[in-house]
Amino acid sequence: MTTMTLDPTLGIDAARFWSTVMRSGEIGPGKAGGLRRLALTDADKEMRDLFVVWCTETGCTVAVDRVGNIFARRPGTDDHLPPVLIGSHLDTQMAGGKYDGIVGVLAGLEILRTLDERRIRTRRPLELVCWTNEEGARFTPPMVASGAFAGVFDVDWVLALLDDDGKRFGSELERIGYAGKTEVGRRGIDAYFELHIEQGPLLDRDAVPVGIVTGGYAVRGMHVDVHGETAHAGPTPMDRRRNALIGAAMLAVAVNDVGWKYHSTEGKATVPRLVAWPNKAGILAEYAQLTCDVRHADTEMADRMWGEVKAAIPDCAKRANVEMRVAGEWQFGSERFDSGCIRLIREAAERLGVPHRDLLSQAGHDAYYMSRIAPTAMIFTPCRDGISHNEAEHADRDTTVPGVNVLLHAVLARANR
Amino acid sequence: MTTMTLDPTLGIDAARFWSTVMRSGEIGPGKAGGLRRLALTDADKEMRDLFVVWCTETGCTVAVDRVGNIFARRPGTDDHLPPVLIGSHLDTQMAGGKYDGIVGVLAGLEILRTLDERRIRTRRPLELVCWTNEEGARFTPPMVASGAFAGVFDVDWVLALLDDDGKRFGSELERIGYAGKTEVGRRGIDAYFELHIEQGPLLDRDAVPVGIVTGGYAVRGMHVDVHGETAHAGPTPMDRRRNALIGAAMLAVAVNDVGWKYHSTEGKATVPRLVAWPNKAGILAEYAQLTCDVRHADTEMADRMWGEVKAAIPDCAKRANVEMRVAGEWQFGSERFDSGCIRLIREAAERLGVPHRDLLSQAGHDAYYMSRIAPTAMIFTPCRDGISHNEAEHADRDTTVPGVNVLLHAVLARANR
Repeated sequence: MTTMTLDPTLGIDAARFWSTVMRSGEIGPGKAGGLRRLALTDADKEMRDLFVVWCTETGCTVAVDRVGNIFARRPGTDDHLPPVLIGSHLDTQMAGGKYDGIVGVLAGLEILRTLDERRIRTRRPLELVCWTNEEGARFTPPMVASGAFAGVFDVDWVLALLDDDGKRFGSELERIGYAGKTEVGRRGIDAYFELHIEQGPLLDRDAVPVGIVTGGYAVRGMHVDVHGETAHAGPTPMDRRRNALIGAAMLAVAVNDVGWKYHSTEGKATVPRLVAWPNKAGILAEYAQLTCDVRHADTEMADRMWGEVKAAIPDCAKRANVEMRVAGEWQFGSERFDSGCIRLIREAAERLGVPHRDLLSQAGHDAYYMSRIAPTAMIFTPCRDGISHNEAEHADRDTTVPGVNVLLHAVLARANR
Repeated sequence: MTTMTLDPTLGIDAARFWSTVMRSGEIGPGKAGGLRRLALTDADKEMRDLFVVWCTETGCTVAVDRVGNIFARRPGTDDHLPPVLIGSHLDTQMAGGKYDGIVGVLAGLEILRTLDERRIRTRRPLELVCWTNEEGARFTPPMVASGAFAGVFDVDWVLALLDDDGKRFGSELERIGYAGKTEVGRRGIDAYFELHIEQGPLLDRDAVPVGIVTGGYAVRGMHVDVHGETAHAGPTPMDRRRNALIGAAMLAVAVNDVGWKYHSTEGKATVPRLVAWPNKAGILAEYAQLTCDVRHADTEMADRMWGEVKAAIPDCAKRANVEMRVAGEWQFGSERFDSGCIRLIREAAERLGVPHRDLLSQAGHDAYYMSRIAPTAMIFTPCRDGISHNEAEHADRDTTVPGVNVLLHAVLARANR
């Protein structure tokens, strides 16, 4: 085991870092103090534009790839070597917080600023990444752009995704000026580091500022299309109805039941979205689509839950007299992060005297897909009561900064090795 | 019992009548051969404009009231007497047919044209009415504008209704130029007659061209608001979730179960509409709204079904850990139509030798609300296989015309008495 040499006087400028988080928190306000900054909206463009200005001011070269991922590059002394990446996302949920994803990107910016100020050069180049549409709130599934970078999703498939208003991912990228020319992925990456709020209660509850993420909860998600037939809500007898909305509602209840069945082992099953058409009074729905996922720390248990959800599909289809088919499926979270990168984080935390604990991530992160193509690790920082994807989401500067300093030293060690 | 005197040679011009139905069928085309002419859309305006031209050409005076109902008046020889009204609606469902409502309005137009041609004057004035937003597809509940005319709904409440895009009934009326000045209702009506396709299979199956509607299925409907809380679809444990969408789905299944329980007595329970917010991947819904109704020929049974649906509300709210409240409720269909008006229809059918049968309406109609303020009756004409609220809805000219002639003679008899 190598022993990290570390300058404990080297640390970020906490006030400068937090001022960028607060500035971001003004762009795309929600209705209750949080943010509504969905991917590829005007607010996302405004945030991206500011981010690019900030990156350019640090002397970085900025490149945008075909799915809108932004890369701000700081050269290394051996600049031909593959870069060390630091990244996360700047988009939010419809009713999201000011910290989810954002503190990770701006922590990376603050690290670049700190290195500039101290005139510290690294052997390997550093790249700060802002991934497009991590949330998947506007264009589902989540993490499509880091997934495309990692070769999980086809670029043209991503560009063709539609939001609920029928707007195309690719057209919206063009509209906001972020349809870049750079090829997506297909290049060497030395390592990927991501800092993120925990979105769970453990660090906040135990007053531990740094979580070392060893891996994730296994997540299996899908869209299910339901096909029925329009008919009059009045005269049509119950046994001649093919109401797609009822089929989708039955499946939603069945998915939720699977979640409860595995609740004692911390399994979860979620239906976040259900759309129907025409979805108007007086007429039965001819179409519905339901989005669902299951999550479990144990991949085998997640697969078992997934099997039960899938078994419910033909049952609900039969009961509602409709047709159902899986219209898209995704899996992530079974990845385990790189032991070398995790060790660097752990050593940095110990040398800096920052309390830390290991944990698994229950949420999805771009780091999962990146871990498929590069050594990857994540740092979690506390968020109040574990609340996230809610405008009440809150993180404190003073419990976030220790994680950023740990990230700084882990990245330095990796980039200089 | 009076015996109707009737000129059997007096009949409508079937070709002229059907050409207006076909012309209407070109305005607001659907995607599968039917119509998508939702209330107060551009297509609705185009149809209304044409209808007003047609009415003006017959010499009628056209007035529009504050909720957009159009009245085309043909003077009587005793013009101070309350008018006999003939009416129905020209709006359709999102995936609707070319006949539902439309044949009733255009049958009235054809009757006025026939009387003009024969230079027949009636003692009482006649008024042909096109009611706004009968379907309730865009602005729920259905039949709001005839309901306002009958004093069931407050005019300002109707004008403030919002569609699913947040557009206001009153603003949309203004936009299409049908925010009239005439006071809504509050005047004497001698009688109201409405011809409509059956939207059920009986007349078509038995090849009977005229159904004499004695009354309706009792309908009880409502919107239910569901309030939960946004949270992350990943880490949030099942027992801390307050997903409004799951609460609404549970209630949808419960409503459907009530329908099946009463299926053997031809009861129905329907969930045509469910909306949720944010309704996006990765986040639990903080709000959902479900629209539902029950229908039964027997008012007492309908009330029992309604009681069971309402009892499911607290149960589902508890199971999904959300709050639910009724956000609007409506009832119609228990009305029984006027025996005098029904007798006129029956006599006309018999004198003309048109086969007929009595039946109840399972669908909602403006006639229900009108029956609360004036003697009212309805004539049904056949539609193929009873299919309606589907673009496959179909009616034949030759099985529709006998009903229009029955309506002509019943209206004449009533207006001349």
